[in-house]
Amino acid sequence: MNSVQVIGIVGGGQLGRMLTLAAKPLGFDVVVVDPGDNCPAAQVGAKQIQADLYDENALSELSERADYITVEIEHLDANVLERLARGGAKINPSPKTISLIQDKYEQKVFLAERSIPVAEFTIVNSQKDATQALSNFGGVMLLKTRHGAYDGRGNTKITNASELDAALAEFGSKTLYAEAYVPFVKELAVMVARDMNGNVATYPIVETTHERNICTIVQAPANISNSINNQAIEVATNVANQLEGAGVFGIEMFLNKQEEILINEIAPRVHNSGHYTMDACYTSQFEQHIRAISGLPLGSSAMYVPAAAMINILGEHDRPTVVKNLKEVLSKPATHVHLYGKSPTKVDRKMGHINVTAINAETALKVAKAARNKLEI
Amino acid sequence: MNSVQVIGIVGGGQLGRMLTLAAKPLGFDVVVVDPGDNCPAAQVGAKQIQADLYDENALSELSERADYITVEIEHLDANVLERLARGGAKINPSPKTISLIQDKYEQKVFLAERSIPVAEFTIVNSQKDATQALSNFGGVMLLKTRHGAYDGRGNTKITNASELDAALAEFGSKTLYAEAYVPFVKELAVMVARDMNGNVATYPIVETTHERNICTIVQAPANISNSINNQAIEVATNVANQLEGAGVFGIEMFLNKQEEILINEIAPRVHNSGHYTMDACYTSQFEQHIRAISGLPLGSSAMYVPAAAMINILGEHDRPTVVKNLKEVLSKPATHVHLYGKSPTKVDRKMGHINVTAINAETALKVAKAARNKLEI
Repeated sequence: MNSVQVIGIVGGGQLGRMLTLAAKPLGFDVVVVDPGDNCPAAQVGAKQIQADLYDENALSELSERADYITVEIEHLDANVLERLARGGAKINPSPKTISLIQDKYEQKVFLAERSIPVAEFTIVNSQKDATQALSNFGGVMLLKTRHGAYDGRGNTKITNASELDAALAEFGSKTLYAEAYVPFVKELAVMVARDMNGNVATYPIVETTHERNICTIVQAPANISNSINNQAIEVATNVANQLEGAGVFGIEMFLNKQEEILINEIAPRVHNSGHYTMDACYTSQFEQHIRAISGLPLGSSAMYVPAAAMINILGEHDRPTVVKNLKEVLSKPATHVHLYGKSPTKVDRKMGHINVTAINAETALKVAKAARNKLEI
Repeated sequence: MNSVQVIGIVGGGQLGRMLTLAAKPLGFDVVVVDPGDNCPAAQVGAKQIQADLYDENALSELSERADYITVEIEHLDANVLERLARGGAKINPSPKTISLIQDKYEQKVFLAERSIPVAEFTIVNSQKDATQALSNFGGVMLLKTRHGAYDGRGNTKITNASELDAALAEFGSKTLYAEAYVPFVKELAVMVARDMNGNVATYPIVETTHERNICTIVQAPANISNSINNQAIEVATNVANQLEGAGVFGIEMFLNKQEEILINEIAPRVHNSGHYTMDACYTSQFEQHIRAISGLPLGSSAMYVPAAAMINILGEHDRPTVVKNLKEVLSKPATHVHLYGKSPTKVDRKMGHINVTAINAETALKVAKAARNKLEI
């Protein structure tokens, strides 16, 4: 063991950066594996092993240098992590959980087998399977890649045969599955943290908005009845308890017209829908995750303000990054800007986010939207 | 101008580190001048020019690399900064203010000339001056060095002739002055921020406790009457308005038995008595300072919790740094630990601080003290 303990993170993007910013004040050093030059985490003092997340040597080196290992992304070589864990590396959440979540179809099977409510789904191994699924699901479905989907990539809504043909052609040889399209009333999400002793802390249920399949807006807390809130917390806690390993989990849900909660997707890590916690909760999701994976106790997940809104700053152009109008944005009350140090800007690239807190959700959202409209990137 | 704007900080200790942690999410790069190896700011991603703070070449290099320059400490070559400012460097607060504050005697003269209440003081150029001062001040006074005093060094309480002789011998050839000892009821402090347009934001008045002349405990807000609170805010704002340049100023005050506020000392920078703002105010003093010196608008300085306590983690031993019992400390509610990444530990070296928030000051202080007692370093 080092005299200064080291957190190793697979991935050094914005999530790795914000984990690093949370780890340093707790006295940890941080090492990340990331393929980019001077990745966002390295800019805030993480040491970087510059390599692909599937690079076995890099992951081995990480486990030699770090006391505790975690991930900021699930697209990595989980087999290598499993082998390292068997060799004694302290990896959280467990590589088994990461493996499970990598395969969205297996993730759904896992949840369904445990009686956790999910939308209907089926494997798609052929055009015939896909056509059958579209018919079974009432003529509208989502065709998804089992692996590697992220921020809307690998995820297409299908409403007729020609859309189906186009999607199958685009996905090519990728393994696929289909889900019934849920005409949801709201999209909800919650961050659930579990420490190494199995203690669980649940953050407030939030409401999310997606554009082009990317989470763009989060409102905390969600504007839902107590009964739905309790149902969502119960389902989400149940999900988290099924997953092995410590850490923070992001759980995305649909609320349908029948006022049922369906689990949409699980992230075995800090998540965009928890960014608001940085400026609204006693313990941010990033500090919470660092605490959880390093054997420290969980902090309070309660909000210290009545309401918060988070808006993602997505790139508007393909060009070297220039941020404009920060002055106007920061002139608004209780407005916090978190930039990720990425360059170049690309269309829809996650460049940062804005958190606004207020006495109610409506005000927070209004201020946040105005701030986002002002900011150019 | 760089496409990514750069903040230059003279000094890369804990204050430079926390300024860096605040600057990065706003999109700034940071460069610091600091003589130490891998200084606390460098550990969180600041680039370091490794040099003494009186090194003219290093300060010149800093001004070439940075768009905005500030300081984390006033013990530096202010003449060089003045020259750089005349050459166009954007330095805040103004080098003139830093110069003034470097000389504690001139600082007192400046305040007294502006009718700002301070304890009686007088120049000490000889043993005769000192003896006369002790007599004039009723047999108890503080003998202080005019320059370079910090955390109690250069500051001695004198109650008789033999103490006076010992102090004069110890201070040797240093230039000195003497102050009447104020039998204070409370020590108060306040952080005041001013942006480049002259807008001022005042943080709550806090109560400070010093041990061995080092600030060890801060309670926010101070337990004082409205009338005293208003008096303190008025005096502090008046002081800040007399000082040139943008930034955060730490203003230390005495409350005496006659319920008068006397200004004790000014810091032209973020300050220990403002560390509680990191976990208790909408805008931390560090973000506020970065905003102020880079031409951004000030954020809200209000507290979002009813009460907070800050306790400094002072080194207990001279040895390589090992932090123990962090687990026990973080098991307490609303307890935040901020470590500075320093090694070795030295007796009374500032190694970090603990912030606790609560529904009242008594609870916050109790939890913070228990946490500090648990933590070993």
